[in-house]
Amino acid sequence: MSVLEPTERTRLRRRANRAHYEREVIDAILDEALICHVGFSVNGQPFVLPTIHARIGDRLYVHGSVSARMLKVLGSGAPACVTATLLDGLVLARAGFHHTMNYRSVVLFGTAEQVSDHAEKRAALDAIVDHVVRGRSAAVRAPTAAELQATAVLRLPISEASAKIRTGFSVESEEDLAWPCWAGVLPLRLVASVPLPDPHLAPGIAVPPELAHYERAALG
Amino acid sequence: MSVLEPTERTRLRRRANRAHYEREVIDAILDEALICHVGFSVNGQPFVLPTIHARIGDRLYVHGSVSARMLKVLGSGAPACVTATLLDGLVLARAGFHHTMNYRSVVLFGTAEQVSDHAEKRAALDAIVDHVVRGRSAAVRAPTAAELQATAVLRLPISEASAKIRTGFSVESEEDLAWPCWAGVLPLRLVASVPLPDPHLAPGIAVPPELAHYERAALG
Repeated sequence: MSVLEPTERTRLRRRANRAHYEREVIDAILDEALICHVGFSVNGQPFVLPTIHARIGDRLYVHGSVSARMLKVLGSGAPACVTATLLDGLVLARAGFHHTMNYRSVVLFGTAEQVSDHAEKRAALDAIVDHVVRGRSAAVRAPTAAELQATAVLRLPISEASAKIRTGFSVESEEDLAWPCWAGVLPLRLVASVPLPDPHLAPGIAVPPELAHYERAALG
Repeated sequence: MSVLEPTERTRLRRRANRAHYEREVIDAILDEALICHVGFSVNGQPFVLPTIHARIGDRLYVHGSVSARMLKVLGSGAPACVTATLLDGLVLARAGFHHTMNYRSVVLFGTAEQVSDHAEKRAALDAIVDHVVRGRSAAVRAPTAAELQATAVLRLPISEASAKIRTGFSVESEEDLAWPCWAGVLPLRLVASVPLPDPHLAPGIAVPPELAHYERAALG
């Protein structure tokens, strides 16, 4: 199994027991998270914007309009931080101080590169569609030349990253255990409800099974 | 209704029809989102970290260990960006290009201040517990002096912020509407499953109704 070398930026200094540097762990979180939050700075002011991403092997891709600030700033080589977070549960303790959440997160540092190669760009855009619904890129109308030209795709190497995972119940001192309030974990997950057909949906097209029974990867 | 003045940083330049500057809209998103992603820079390198927050009136609070880097950097007056994102649905179009998501997000800029006043610190920590489960701060064991000393609380004014909201189906060209794949919206929401009692739970304590039937604010 591939394990990333912790760097000054990715080594967890606090709660190091929650840190994971195995690519398998990092990739699984990136793949399950529908979106990530991308950080970049403009004149010292940080910006954090939600966006969809997709992974192909050792590369993380994000995309957007060629006119979007995030794509322009990151595409010019500004340092980036990409964070993906999955909430797995609320950890209810007896003391306010010991409340926490169960989560799995990845923080990835790097410098993005513009994807100019046509085949790589197509593959990245297909991967982004398939990241949302497995196999969907094969069913949809392929991008036109104008759509490809209007879309910027950026690539980040998955080489400097760490995962942080918390699981289980609260950790409390012996004397607090008798405090008379309920304590435990309330598991959380992102679920889909019934698909809503587009008002212009052509007749006779059924909801595909991957949408009728939509699930991100099972929670740990 | 209070409306924030858009600034150079908060004015949406693209898709301005999705922008909202009303405090009522901004506050509702901040209150529903369990966590936010906080951005700050250290020597030009952006960091984006997930954390829980709570709002009291015009102030957003975050907290953490006094030894955590995020708290130290933000507490020293570094510019911050706080982003909260709620995913409401997948928007499945006929063309890959028109796929998107329905979401509600807030981006807040500002400079944090350390909360040193004891009463404000207690109120902020209670608000953070109550942000997760309404009314819970009254039921839990109150913080000790040592716990308060170990915890840093930061305050950000909610004065420079914008919300961005997307709803509805995909917008596609007439000629794509006949493309033979399913199109529509798959609604998403964060749901709780059955509460798991702590193995050390004192006997005779029932799951409170706010946890047995946990819900974040209803989706729009």
